[in-house]
Amino acid sequence: MDLFGLLHLEELSLGLANLSMFPYFDMAHYIVSVMALREQPGAIEVSRVSPLACWFSSMLFCFGGAVLSGIMLAEPPVAPLSNSTGVLLASVIWYLVFYCPMDLVYCCAALLPLRLVLSGMKEVTRTWKVLGGVTLAQTKYKDGLLVMIAIGWARGAGGGLISNFEQLVRGVWKPETNELLRMSYPTKITLIGAVLFALQQTHYLPVQKHHLMLVYTVFTVVNKSRMMLTGSSTSPFATVESAIYKTLFAGNSPYAALTGEVKTTCFDNGATTTTTKESGENGGARQRAPTSPVKGQSSSLKAKEESEDAATSQCKKTD
Amino acid sequence: MDLFGLLHLEELSLGLANLSMFPYFDMAHYIVSVMALREQPGAIEVSRVSPLACWFSSMLFCFGGAVLSGIMLAEPPVAPLSNSTGVLLASVIWYLVFYCPMDLVYCCAALLPLRLVLSGMKEVTRTWKVLGGVTLAQTKYKDGLLVMIAIGWARGAGGGLISNFEQLVRGVWKPETNELLRMSYPTKITLIGAVLFALQQTHYLPVQKHHLMLVYTVFTVVNKSRMMLTGSSTSPFATVESAIYKTLFAGNSPYAALTGEVKTTCFDNGATTTTTKESGENGGARQRAPTSPVKGQSSSLKAKEESEDAATSQCKKTD
Amino acid sequence: MDLFGLLHLEELSLGLANLSMFPYFDMAHYIVSVMALREQPGAIEVSRVSPLACWFSSMLFCFGGAVLSGIMLAEPPVAPLSNSTGVLLASVIWYLVFYCPMDLVYCCAALLPLRLVLSGMKEVTRTWKVLGGVTLAQTKYKDGLLVMIAIGWARGAGGGLISNFEQLVRGVWKPETNELLRMSYPTKITLIGAVLFALQQTHYLPVQKHHLMLVYTVFTVVNKSRMMLTGSSTSPFATVESAIYKTLFAGNSPYAALTGEVKTTCFDNGATTTTTKESGENGGARQRAPTSPVKGQSSSLKAKEESEDAATSQCKKTD
Repeated sequence: MDLFGLLHLEELSLGLANLSMFPYFDMAHYIVSVMALREQPGAIEVSRVSPLACWFSSMLFCFGGAVLSGIMLAEPPVAPLSNSTGVLLASVIWYLVFYCPMDLVYCCAALLPLRLVLSGMKEVTRTWKVLGGVTLAQTKYKDGLLVMIAIGWARGAGGGLISNFEQLVRGVWKPETNELLRMSYPTKITLIGAVLFALQQTHYLPVQKHHLMLVYTVFTVVNKSRMMLTGSSTSPFATVESAIYKTLFAGNSPYAALTGEVKTTCFDNGATTTTTKESGENGGARQRAPTSPVKGQSSSLKAKEESEDAATSQCKKTD
Repeated sequence: MDLFGLLHLEELSLGLANLSMFPYFDMAHYIVSVMALREQPGAIEVSRVSPLACWFSSMLFCFGGAVLSGIMLAEPPVAPLSNSTGVLLASVIWYLVFYCPMDLVYCCAALLPLRLVLSGMKEVTRTWKVLGGVTLAQTKYKDGLLVMIAIGWARGAGGGLISNFEQLVRGVWKPETNELLRMSYPTKITLIGAVLFALQQTHYLPVQKHHLMLVYTVFTVVNKSRMMLTGSSTSPFATVESAIYKTLFAGNSPYAALTGEVKTTCFDNGATTTTTKESGENGGARQRAPTSPVKGQSSSLKAKEESEDAATSQCKKTD
Repeated sequence: MDLFGLLHLEELSLGLANLSMFPYFDMAHYIVSVMALREQPGAIEVSRVSPLACWFSSMLFCFGGAVLSGIMLAEPPVAPLSNSTGVLLASVIWYLVFYCPMDLVYCCAALLPLRLVLSGMKEVTRTWKVLGGVTLAQTKYKDGLLVMIAIGWARGAGGGLISNFEQLVRGVWKPETNELLRMSYPTKITLIGAVLFALQQTHYLPVQKHHLMLVYTVFTVVNKSRMMLTGSSTSPFATVESAIYKTLFAGNSPYAALTGEVKTTCFDNGATTTTTKESGENGGARQRAPTSPVKGQSSSLKAKEESEDAATSQCKKTD
């Protein structure tokens, strides 16, 4: 608090906490979400074959968090549909991104400067969604720290967590990969946010809510911008994760050889040198199980990245 | 209203609106639903291997709408089981259709005249189910037009919408196809009904409820009978759909070539000539993506049709 | 009642009925459940790749019944997380079973005498869970016998019934098999228990609750111990099942040949001689449909058994 006072950030953090997400930040969230859907492999084909399935998929990208947290708290998952303004806004954006003549809207929004701004604004909505989930869970389960974390996480990263079922709507089924097996950066940062806000709400973390909101928002926005500008997908937590993993989950188990191998898959950003050394210590017994459920993931991730490249190049061709 | 008075239909529509679905119309619904399950590929084998899985699948065919709308409104999906009479009736019909000695019940009900009557009666229950869903949603979300449409649709066409998960009960998994990607006729007509009844209930559609019930019921029954008698699967909306599709979703996008190709799959009933011409205009750039999620559908549909033929011929052999 | 009085079992059954499951029996349930997860093919690899997915899977093994019955009654499926003590206990056990240095905990618990005791204690918790589910359903649906059976079954055998979705968390998808298509022994005994307790609670079964609890618990514990000691997987109900099946579901249908064939798969424990004879009577028309959904099951079961053997031998090697 003193530090915030010192840096004249008190007013800024209060101002941020009173910021309304509707309509501009929500719009940015819808645009970035629908664009992410469009960049999934096969999504454009689905949009031509069945606009309804495409629309439903888009709504799951936009409102997935509300749907998932609704199911988890036994509240109607259909509730987001009752927010007519939000659905209308998201639907208009869905229509423009997918079906706009000359593909103008998508190609404009895909330009780096605009995309940077929109992605930053979307990151801001994450803070609100996570906090909303945590406080909602607290009204139902007072002192239920785990429930608060789960609902905050679900609300903030719902679209990712239900991606298996969202893909099913589009006729795609990739059981070998999900956000629990290989967490993406947004899911990870949302989980950390949910833990922080749940600790703050239960007073285990002695900070004020609007200070935490400012710090968390700034961190997510800056980090997202950095990742988009440098094109790197290095998680800022790779070192911490690697340390926790080695301390808690590697152990002196007879599976250490296997562990070393798998860790390479798990922390292939930044921690590669360490793990390679470790697997070397284990006698280089690097065996790859042929039916590993983890295999498909890196390739599917690669496919997604390639599709993003393809989409961008497509725009350039159109110009 | 005047037209109805003129044609002396006022009494008829009031009489229809006061018609009780239980027991005759419900029975017809159960018989047609269980027969539809039996005609799925592999269903008979499942009925021999695991009567319980077969029974559970049948209940999803019979009560799928109630289960799905229950989940969507956060009401117990197990509720249909508490309606003992309905479950008992449906179970008896399930038993007779699958395990009756000499297969008498199925072969009788599969005779065209009887099947025609039963299917017509099942169509009547659709009106009641859609209306029930719409009014149920209205009690929870006043003015929530989209929620009313969604629940009305789910209740009327639930069995189809959850077909992926119903198939999973029988050990079948076809992720590449679902009712959103390629809507069947019953799902389509139910969606239209849900929209009409939701508009009527919110007074956007200035007609009386019992008049709309009469018109919608007559339309569904007549259309179903026509389709069964002529054996055609041409949707009566093909022209309208095609027009809407071309106006809204084709656009001048760089994917027009792809669009033309896919539309052939989508509206292969009646609109084929037009689309072929269109894809010709686009320079004949007909490329088929090898991993199209849409591929499996026509073949699975064909399989279903073939299984129906097989089932009928099987009956003839038994006679 | 008289018999119970005669055998001085009245006090024993009352004592059992007042037994608290927490903490010892709950712990045994968690240990046996997490060990069952660890013995699934691929589970150890997942535990190295993604401890979070492994933890979530473990929680589904431990609290699957509460989650499933929660969904079925439209109560928050997230509720088990609010029981902090239970989740903490299960998490500690999960950690020790998967990541304990030298694999001490797993190898100790896998020793036959200890495993026998733990499995017996786990069977005791089944009685409490089934009864809990039945009484919970009764508070919501008075006289809803079917709902009571369904919820009692779901709560007692939830982990098995949702196994398809539990596997999905680990990146495994086996749609061709589920507990409804081929019921395992625990699922079967839980269903029987749910039926008995539901009949008792609705006074159709004229016994006292604590007497039924004693009889059911003794039966499950003795039977489980017998199966573990003899290594046999013969269901004690095979004869009854076979008789019911032949009476109700075989019929004189034209599919008898098919039936005879499939029955071999279904009751391959004990009833093999009979069915072979029967299929011989049908002219030996044994055709195997190449896309049978039932095929994959025996092989997946075999895989599970093999994985258990492998796990045991691994421990021996470590010692």
